[in-house]
Parts: sequence; C-alpha cells; structure tokens
Amino acid sequence: MLQWLKHYRRDQLPGDISAGLVVAMMMIPQGMAYAIVAGLPPVVGIYASIVPPIVYALFGSSMTQSVGPMAIISLMTAAVIGPLAPAGSALAGVLAAQLALVSGAVLLLCGLLRMGFLANFFSRPVMSGFTVGSAIVIAYDQLHTLLGAALPQVHLPSAVLGVGSLVLLVLARQYLSALLKRCGVPAVAADIAAKLAPMMVVLAGIALMSCTSLAEMGVRTTGLVPAGLPQLNLASSSQHWGVLLQPGLLIGFMVFLLSMSGAQALALKRNEKLVSNHELVGLGAANVASALSGGFPVTGSLSRSAVNFAAGANTPLASLITAVLLACALLLPTGWLALLPMPVLAATIIVAVLGMLEMGILRTAWEYDRGDALAWVATCLGVLVMGVEAGVIIGVALSMGTLIWRASRPHIAVLGRIAGTEHFRNIERYPAETQPEFLMLRIDANLFFGNVEAVNERIECELATHQSARDLVLVMSAVSSIDTTALMALAELNQSMKRRAIGMHLAEVKGPVMDRLRNSTLLQQLNGKLFLSAANASDQLHSSRDVA
Amino acid sequence: MLQWLKHYRRDQLPGDISAGLVVAMMMIPQGMAYAIVAGLPPVVGIYASIVPPIVYALFGSSMTQSVGPMAIISLMTAAVIGPLAPAGSALAGVLAAQLALVSGAVLLLCGLLRMGFLANFFSRPVMSGFTVGSAIVIAYDQLHTLLGAALPQVHLPSAVLGVGSLVLLVLARQYLSALLKRCGVPAVAADIAAKLAPMMVVLAGIALMSCTSLAEMGVRTTGLVPAGLPQLNLASSSQHWGVLLQPGLLIGFMVFLLSMSGAQALALKRNEKLVSNHELVGLGAANVASALSGGFPVTGSLSRSAVNFAAGANTPLASLITAVLLACALLLPTGWLALLPMPVLAATIIVAVLGMLEMGILRTAWEYDRGDALAWVATCLGVLVMGVEAGVIIGVALSMGTLIWRASRPHIAVLGRIAGTEHFRNIERYPAETQPEFLMLRIDANLFFGNVEAVNERIECELATHQSARDLVLVMSAVSSIDTTALMALAELNQSMKRRAIGMHLAEVKGPVMDRLRNSTLLQQLNGKLFLSAANASDQLHSSRDVA
Repeated sequence: MLQWLKHYRRDQLPGDISAGLVVAMMMIPQGMAYAIVAGLPPVVGIYASIVPPIVYALFGSSMTQSVGPMAIISLMTAAVIGPLAPAGSALAGVLAAQLALVSGAVLLLCGLLRMGFLANFFSRPVMSGFTVGSAIVIAYDQLHTLLGAALPQVHLPSAVLGVGSLVLLVLARQYLSALLKRCGVPAVAADIAAKLAPMMVVLAGIALMSCTSLAEMGVRTTGLVPAGLPQLNLASSSQHWGVLLQPGLLIGFMVFLLSMSGAQALALKRNEKLVSNHELVGLGAANVASALSGGFPVTGSLSRSAVNFAAGANTPLASLITAVLLACALLLPTGWLALLPMPVLAATIIVAVLGMLEMGILRTAWEYDRGDALAWVATCLGVLVMGVEAGVIIGVALSMGTLIWRASRPHIAVLGRIAGTEHFRNIERYPAETQPEFLMLRIDANLFFGNVEAVNERIECELATHQSARDLVLVMSAVSSIDTTALMALAELNQSMKRRAIGMHLAEVKGPVMDRLRNSTLLQQLNGKLFLSAANASDQLHSSRDVA
Repeated sequence: MLQWLKHYRRDQLPGDISAGLVVAMMMIPQGMAYAIVAGLPPVVGIYASIVPPIVYALFGSSMTQSVGPMAIISLMTAAVIGPLAPAGSALAGVLAAQLALVSGAVLLLCGLLRMGFLANFFSRPVMSGFTVGSAIVIAYDQLHTLLGAALPQVHLPSAVLGVGSLVLLVLARQYLSALLKRCGVPAVAADIAAKLAPMMVVLAGIALMSCTSLAEMGVRTTGLVPAGLPQLNLASSSQHWGVLLQPGLLIGFMVFLLSMSGAQALALKRNEKLVSNHELVGLGAANVASALSGGFPVTGSLSRSAVNFAAGANTPLASLITAVLLACALLLPTGWLALLPMPVLAATIIVAVLGMLEMGILRTAWEYDRGDALAWVATCLGVLVMGVEAGVIIGVALSMGTLIWRASRPHIAVLGRIAGTEHFRNIERYPAETQPEFLMLRIDANLFFGNVEAVNERIECELATHQSARDLVLVMSAVSSIDTTALMALAELNQSMKRRAIGMHLAEVKGPVMDRLRNSTLLQQLNGKLFLSAANASDQLHSSRDVA
C-alpha cells in the first residue's frame, strides 16, 4: 500500500501530471456517456471518476490502471436496474450505488479470502466473445440517440449532428495522429491529441448548440449537470438487497476479470508485477467508495489505462491528479455541460465501443483450435440474444465445462524397463520391455475428484488387456497431491485388487504426499508394498515370485 | 440399448423376479412418502415409479439401478414448487411434472452433447455434506407430521403412533436381520426381510386404523389413492416455464450426480461398466416419461438400488417387474391405502433419511485434508441455513474454485544435466548440473487458460534468479495440449524474450502439439530453435556460443 509514494522520484512528476490532465479531459465526456449507458444522470459518471480512483490508488497494485466507469460494466448495470426503476430516476441512482456496494463487498471478501486465482477463470476467446457481443449491444442501443428517434424514423437535425460527429471521430481515430505527425508534432503528442478528439467534438457540439437554434429544432441535450462535489450517499432500497445479490456477484466478477485482463497487458509492457489479491481489494474498495459517493459500479478500463500509460503515467499519482481536476471541474460553473447534445455523446459512445470489436482472437482461435472459436461464438451470441448477464453465465459454464473436461483426461503411461538399465519408461515412446505378470502404470496428474473416475477406468482397461497381471504398481512420481475423494477411490481400488488377488503397490511416492497418506488407513491396508523406485519394485516383486 | 435382453439367460430370471417383487413392496410406501416430501398427492409417487423405470431400462446402462422418487430430489422439487402453488393442489402437480420435463430435457441435451464427464463435478466431501444437510432438513420437516402437530404442541394419538413406528423401524433396522439369521433364516433372505420392515409397519398401521377409532381421534391418513393407471399428461402452466428453467437445470444436474454416485458404487461391486453418457440419456428419458405420466422428477436411488442388487437383480428386467407389479396394485382396489396413517409414513421417511446421515466421509476428510472437511461443512451448512438450492450452488462454487485453484498451480521443474550422461532432471530432486547462461524449464502440465498466468509468473521468477541466462529452453515433454489462450501467452512471452535478447527455445514438443502449433505463427516468429531433446538443446546452444 502506497509503496509507490515512499519511493516517489521527482523525475516521475511531469509524466504523472501530463497523464492526469489528459485522462481528466478524456474522462468528462466518457464518464457522462457511460452513466447514460447505465441509465443514470450524466453527473453520476463524473462522481464515479473522482473518489473510486483515489481509493484504488491506496489499495490497488497496478501503477497505470485508470479506475472509473466502463462501457461493459455500465451495460451490465443497466440490465440489472433497468427493469427495477425508470432510467434517470432517483431510485435508479440509489439502486446503482447499492449494486456497486454489493459488487465491492464481494470483491473485498474475495480479496480477504485470497481468491485472486479467479482471474484465470475465463479463457481469452470467451472474454473476447463477451466483449465483442457487449460492444455490439451498446452501439445498437445508442443508435436511436444518435439519430434522435427510434428507427426507422430519424430526427434530421439530430441525425446530421450525430452522424457528422461519428464520421469526424472515426476519421480522427484513423488519420489524426498520422496527420499531426506529418505536420511535425512529436509522435507521443500526436497520439495523445488523437485520443482527445472526443473531448474536442464534444466542445464543438456545445459551441454549436449555444450559437445555433438546434435546441429549438428538437436536438436533445444532457441537461443540467449539478455543480458541487459528490456527497456522502447512504441511501439504499432495503427491499432490493435480495434482488441485487446475484447480479452484484456477477458484476463484481466481471469488474475483476475486465480490470485484470487490461492491467495484465499493461504490466507486461512495463515489466511490473500485478498482485491479483491486491487488485481484488483495490477494486472492491473503489466500488464501495463509488457507492458511498453517489456513483455506480466501476472498473479498470483497458482503453483509458492505455491512454494514461501513453500520456506518461508513472504512478497512481496520475489518477489522483485526474480526480482532483474532475473535482475542480464540478466546483466551477457547469452550465456549459448542460448544452452537450445527446447525438454527439452517442457518437462518442459508439466510437469508443467500436474499438472493442477486436476479431483477431476469433481468427487465431479459428485457425488454431475450433473448440475455442466455438466458445467465442457461443459467448458472443449469448450476449446478443439473451443479454449480457446470460453471456457471463454462458462464459462461466463454458469455463467450468472446459476445466472438468480437461481434468477428466489425465495422462497415464504403461511403463517398461529399458533393456539392461534401471530406467522405466512409457512403452509407447521407448523400446521398453514389460512382463506379463506385472503391470506398471505412471499417473501423470495430481489425483483429485475431477479425474479419479478416469484413472479408475484406465486402470481397469489396462488390467483387462493384461489378464495375467498378478501385481499392479502405481508409479506416483508425478503426483504431488491426492485429495480426499481420490484417497477413498484408491482405498476402493485396493479392496477390489485384494478381492481379485492382485497385489497393489505404490512406487516413488513424493514426500508431501506420503506425509498426508500417513493420516489415512490406506497404507496399513495396502494389499502390497511401498517402493522407492520403479526398478526397486520390479526387482523385488520378481525375486519374491522366483522364490515362490 | 437392450443389450441385456439379447443376451438374457434363463438362470437370471429367478433373481430378477425376486428383486422385482421386493422392490415393489418397498416402493409403495416409499413412493407415497417421497411424493408427500415434494408436497404432492401420494399417488404421484407411485405413478413416478411405473413408467420412468421402464423407460430407463430401455436407455440406461446400469443393470441394477432402481429409478424412481428419491428423498433429496423430492426436497428440491418442494423447494421449487412450494412458493408457486399450495401443497397438494392441482397446480402443484402440473408444475412438478413440468419441472421433471425441464430436468429431463436438460439431461437428454447433455447426453446428446456427450457431457457425461460432468459426473466428476462434485468431490465426495461436497456430495456427502449436501446429502447430510438435505437429510436433516427432510427429517426436521417430517417432525410435525410424526407428532401430529407443530412443535411444541403434540397430538398424542398421532405422536404415539408415529414415535412407536419410528422406534420399531429403528429396531428393525438394527437388529431384525441378525435376529432372523439367528432363527435360521438364510442371510440374504434375512437382510431383505429387514428392508421390508417399512412395508410391514405401514400394513400394521393400516390395520390399526381400520380396527380402532384412531381416525376419529384425529390421526390423519393419506386419504384416497385413486385407482387406475397413470394417464398421459400434457398439462403445463405456460407462465411458469421461465421460473422453472434454472431450478430444472439444477435438479437435472443433481439427478445425474446422485444417480451416478450410487450406480458407480454398485457397478464397482459387480465389475460392470457404467457409460455416463448413456446414463444422462436414460435419466433424461425417465424424467420426460415421468412428466408425461403425471409424475415428478426421479433419479436412481442408492439405497433402493442396493436392495434391488441384494435381492438378486441381474438385469433391468427386475425393474420392469417392479413397474408391472405397481401398475397391478393400482388396478386393484386401492381403498386400503387411504387408511395409511400419516405419522407412520413420516416415521418411514425419517428412518430412510437417517440412513443418509453418513459422517464417515467427514471424519476421513478431517483427518486427511482439512480443506475437504471445510467444503463438507460449508455445503452442509449451506443446505441447512439457505436451503437445498443454495446448497447445490455452494457445491458448484466450491468445485469450480477448487478446480481453478488446482489448475493455477502447475508443476514446473528447473532441469540440469546429470553429470556425464545425456539425462536432464529436476535439480531439486537430483544432483544435476546447470549452466549460468542457460535456463531449462520442464512444464509438467497441459497449457491452458487456467494456468498460463502461473506459468508466466514462474518463468519470470526463474529468470529473475538466473540473471545471466541468455537462453530459455522450455521442455514440453509433459505438455499434451496447448489451448488458444496459452498459445497467445507463449507468443507474448516470445516477444518479451526477443526484447530482452534472450533466446526462447522449445524442446521435446509432442507430435500432436507440434501439429497444432503449425497452424499458428508462433513457430515462424520463435526467437530461438526447436530441439528434439533437452540434451540436444544443451549441446547445440553450447557449441553455438563457443563458436561466437
């Protein structure tokens, strides 16, 4: 916590200041836009960009992560509170904050239980399919705001303004940076200027609204943004706690996954180490802070964090500067923000999510592993057809299914002796010799509930093809843990071998595994012996048979 | 399908007939009792014992499994339909059948998708905790029926009858078999007679009710059981499909897990092979059949299947005989069943579920693996405090968590050369030699999304402790698959190594893995070479450095 502050160097300051400034200018339209995606008043998006990043700076572990509103989490928020309260209503605001509180509490709890390993829950194809599906849903939802009316109708002045902004933004995104560079602007500055295009278009839109009669022609604006800092918010709707529990859990889960996938990509570039348990605590505290300051669920945004990083952010001080600048903006008169035309804001949302339409992972998966490509398609279609919450659940189901399926296919090798040596190797890969009365299997996986049945089946199958085997030796050199289910299955296998008069022996059991097994009755009841090595087992079992 | 019928031997018939008879006599009180647990009219339990086992005999793979009503599935059914319809109402019956239809459809779908590997989803401690929790809930729920009034009140005649039956049944369970054996009855017959004690007590209860004035004193009876075979039922409540979807999925899941855990134990004793995908289809078809014949969700019951097996069942013909006998019972006058006193039925339920209070697994887990013991306790408490559905979800969460956690800890060994040989071994376990400019790691796990981060972290950690390493060799001898996420992570690692001017080499890549990798760009972009063996890599990298 605050390690970065203790070791702060003065030469880090200029980068942090420039990044703080750039991200603040990016954040004003983005925060307002994502609040609208969530069905909330625009100012809520700015509130959620002030206190949460400050709290994250205290507890998080990423140096450049920019925590605040994010498109997909806003979409998930809208999916939860939309059916419970009208968009923009006071109840919607209360429920959104309550949802952030539930998500934050879930994240904090997971952090305290050190469940950071959950960051590996989704495969990249599943995550990518989810992101693309969500981006399409968000863009589609904004179409009627962009055009000023629900399709097939169009409100011409709104549509001209909206589509015009969209075209400008797309052009800026594609060519502005290159153009500026050709005009002699330094590369980094040109890239950052291109990222500020949305703020420029928004300012132009506000100027247009104040100079022309577009408002009288029916172009909607965001309306009054109340001045003043966010207030401490303790309001909650007691009857809704139950309804918000499951969605809060899912949103907390996605807050973590989305933030981690972005932060990991950045940490890799900076050779920094991310501590997933700290991230859980940082994101959890940020969401609780968002709830208490009238905000809504927040997370680390990859696109914004990338700008933060590119603009020179060295430490979380950049985020603190952003937060202070946004607070200042709310303390100044905010009347000018009220004139922001909605079609322009819709255009910024659409351009932002268009950047999430990354098909490269689908292409890679399609060429490399069709199963992964199908998982991408299933998750994306799930979001499009059944909604964003169903998309998460489909992703979870696919991940679980894949995990169980992988676990249920452990590798097991029949071992034989390399002639004239002490070495025992997989007979499928080496010219190794086996004996008919002697079956030696090496189990190349930790034994646990997910694979005991598969191991059992394989052993039975090998015994069926080695009918004359009188001794079964399990070589445990690759087994570093055995859970209770596997222990019980081994005990049952031992009983079964006893009934069939086949000796059951264990060889090369690792130290920690042996320590555990001493706490069970398996070793006492073993219908055979323990051997230090496969060669040992082979020699001793042979000589005892020769004597008999 | 029907393999057993093609190879039916005449000497299998006596066993099947005796088992069919015994299970039918067990099924009448049990079916009625479990229908009451589900909040349904008693006859529904008998309906669910006629058509489903016939259908299961056609599609299932177990020879001795007895499919029909089961206590835990009835409890889950009650938890779903209880809040939607009054117990015993017509709507409750319609919803119960609809729930069976949803569960059956889910199971059939999983069967067609060959998802039998899901049978390994729960560890035994989780399964045991769930069973014990459910048993306590069921027994507790029956207390007021046993005593004829809600505690602390007691309806004396009911309580005397109920507690008397309970004592009789417990004594019979403990001593009847031994007593009969001492009287010279053959062991098998004595065991089976003990299992029929519930039917005897039920008959005695009916006799008592018809001879005495207990009914006038207020002892409740099951009431009229309508005669006649189950009718084709196509009724459904269209507004409830949505509500029943998720519970139907959970019930289908538990139907499969409960049935498989019982059937696996029996198959082990009989040296039979169970095909989990066939079981999915068999159980799915049985539940659809139950829905269409006015029943409710059914599954294979371990206790009843064990009786079936002990009574001599050789093939599913035994279940067919049971079904025919039950159908006959419904065709005969059923007036006598109407006199069955509820306290006696409650006693049979309590004794049946007391048999599920198996604490042995908790004890084993406590001594062997505290984590597993905690999972047992968490699942059991979940059922007791939050209900049976929450118990399943807790079990799923614990399983998932365990799977991810295990996956996130892959084994990776630093390899060194055993002096004077071609062999490379784990330096922690063998006296192997390493070179400072050369880091060789063997990855002992398949690479996929669940462990790529952990592998990355370990590689970075080893590189940090081997600062002088100029070459990184990943020995892939134990890697038999690499998914898309891991492929992308390897490509990123390769880029990172290139930036740091460290060669990244792969050695001992398996054939199938290599075939896959050829469909990606990793091999072309590899900042190093492919080697056939670790020794090869070491020799070539050394000589190239010597030349340089």
